[in-house]
Amino acid sequence: MELPAGDYIGMRRDEIDTPVLLVDLDALDSNIEKMAAHFRETGKHLRPHSKSHKTPAIAHRQLEAGALGITCAKLGEAEVMADAGIRDILIANEVVGAKKIERLMHLATRCDIMVAVDHPANLNALNAAAAASDVSPRVLVEVNIGHNRCGAAPGQAAVDLARQAQNASHLRFAGIMGYEGHVVDLEDGAEREERASECLQRLVDARADIEAAGIAVGICSSSATGDYYISTRFDGITEVQAGSYALMDAAYGRLGLGFENALTVLTTVGSRPTSHQVITDAGLKSLTPEHGFPLVKDRNDLECHALSEEHGRLRTLDGADCTDLQVGDLLEFIPGHGCTTVNLHDYLYAMRGGQLVDVWPIAARGKVR
Amino acid sequence: MELPAGDYIGMRRDEIDTPVLLVDLDALDSNIEKMAAHFRETGKHLRPHSKSHKTPAIAHRQLEAGALGITCAKLGEAEVMADAGIRDILIANEVVGAKKIERLMHLATRCDIMVAVDHPANLNALNAAAAASDVSPRVLVEVNIGHNRCGAAPGQAAVDLARQAQNASHLRFAGIMGYEGHVVDLEDGAEREERASECLQRLVDARADIEAAGIAVGICSSSATGDYYISTRFDGITEVQAGSYALMDAAYGRLGLGFENALTVLTTVGSRPTSHQVITDAGLKSLTPEHGFPLVKDRNDLECHALSEEHGRLRTLDGADCTDLQVGDLLEFIPGHGCTTVNLHDYLYAMRGGQLVDVWPIAARGKVR
Repeated sequence: MELPAGDYIGMRRDEIDTPVLLVDLDALDSNIEKMAAHFRETGKHLRPHSKSHKTPAIAHRQLEAGALGITCAKLGEAEVMADAGIRDILIANEVVGAKKIERLMHLATRCDIMVAVDHPANLNALNAAAAASDVSPRVLVEVNIGHNRCGAAPGQAAVDLARQAQNASHLRFAGIMGYEGHVVDLEDGAEREERASECLQRLVDARADIEAAGIAVGICSSSATGDYYISTRFDGITEVQAGSYALMDAAYGRLGLGFENALTVLTTVGSRPTSHQVITDAGLKSLTPEHGFPLVKDRNDLECHALSEEHGRLRTLDGADCTDLQVGDLLEFIPGHGCTTVNLHDYLYAMRGGQLVDVWPIAARGKVR
Repeated sequence: MELPAGDYIGMRRDEIDTPVLLVDLDALDSNIEKMAAHFRETGKHLRPHSKSHKTPAIAHRQLEAGALGITCAKLGEAEVMADAGIRDILIANEVVGAKKIERLMHLATRCDIMVAVDHPANLNALNAAAAASDVSPRVLVEVNIGHNRCGAAPGQAAVDLARQAQNASHLRFAGIMGYEGHVVDLEDGAEREERASECLQRLVDARADIEAAGIAVGICSSSATGDYYISTRFDGITEVQAGSYALMDAAYGRLGLGFENALTVLTTVGSRPTSHQVITDAGLKSLTPEHGFPLVKDRNDLECHALSEEHGRLRTLDGADCTDLQVGDLLEFIPGHGCTTVNLHDYLYAMRGGQLVDVWPIAARGKVR
């Protein structure tokens, strides 16, 4: 991946062309340290989800801060992280189909890969491919703990799958995982705690069922940025997959979790049609709307109310006046959803003290498979 | 941009790994020819917007079918199209800021670039930069014809800007443009016609005002796939910027315009939790939701009702049963919004007769500026 042309390092914010994805390194470092401290204190393991940043430079910072390994959503991301020298990688989804399974086995020769399974046929296919390639990847049985997307049913189905995994000649049964994705972003903290706890109890119960069948469960993995602190209270849970905490976004910001917004899209005012309207150069091809429109950083008097492909439309709140803004001025958007916004960009511009200190390739972007 | 590994050409659909963006070449060719025929018949010019496909291979097909040149949304796209040998390029937005204006002047040495202007200060900046670089780019005065995003006000402001452009020593005043983006996708055809016509009349009136001031208007450009046929009825309009017609999407499909869906995301069934639910491997990182969830091609019994980052959730309609689908089976999604879906992918897989005949780099993807 080519780096942007020119000698960018040392540029001030107002020398950088827009739209561009910025990461505030002080905020990133603070977020990584806050989360790392929680895991040091609780004695649990953090395996940060890299789908949020897709950036090896950030994954390495998380590992240096004490993370056990990293989590990926798919093979293409895991391949990029293995290329970046990361050894302990969980693909927290099922890998289905002959082509992908072949890639997984190749990956198993380059790192200590671990993959989710939720179906006997998939487990058989993985074992046969591992035997043919003479590798022994780790597997986690995914249990459906309420999200109703993937995962074996808790109870007998999960126990049977764990036994099948343990008996598979070329797989290492490493434990179980669950994902309560339908509750991790509930804005009401008490409701989030109650509903996440119900899901996590199902996971811990599934663990107990499997252990009662005489099968040791080493890893029990779950959770996200919205409920990592709930998960670490459960004795049976050993590690957490939170990822958004590093960069954050406007949607997670509403949960009051104590992490800082490290991710913004720097954008230029292209037009100020009236004293209460601004048009900027960041739209749907620079940030995503599915978790709500972006916030305008340090401008509580402005709200984004529409995004077209290349333009953001802002208006003032409460009849305020924005004539201080002129064409060419800069604003920063805090994206509604960081994970999908990062996925639109090839580079992350790392800022400290108002200066560009590095340009990081978002190396796993574009790896759709 | 590296091509995907392996000798892909000649593969059948069921040999291609998913998720992946497919273009049906028969449908693409049919759409390009249908639109080209309309412009041959009306004697107007088509300058297809390349923001929809970002793919030089498609732009070249549009030019071969008779298009006058191409339209781009931003500099980064225009640079890619110039690299691909295309000469006549309109950037249908304002280019603001010293860095971008410098790039624009460099581009003017490589192709016959034309750019929108809507403000006297921007026009002055363009002229000064053109003088410094000894180039003479063309400019179109953008008129606000009702979209209220960018564009000079119709009437005196537009006339004054046209005069300033005509008098600028290093710019070639080429004409005017307007964009009625708020009405081009209205589903009711009669309402779309009425409201688009109001906007287009404003554009034609602005042209008359400028010509009444003794300034010749060569180009008068507007419109999109939803109203190209309305635009070409106006004597004063000379060319049209429609782009989505080539690939189409589910949202434009609802308008009944007679173009075929050429664009799909091929996706694999990863789970079928019940007899009326399917989980597939295409989510928000493979297609976009802002114009509605994708349709399932050739499966009127299934609807997508949710997208997470890496998964699509389908359910059957009217209590139907989908037990014919098994893990590993393929489906195709027709994206809700083609322009932003294409923007998530690096490659477009070109299919004809059920076989992969080419892999086209989506070369302008990732050019955020």
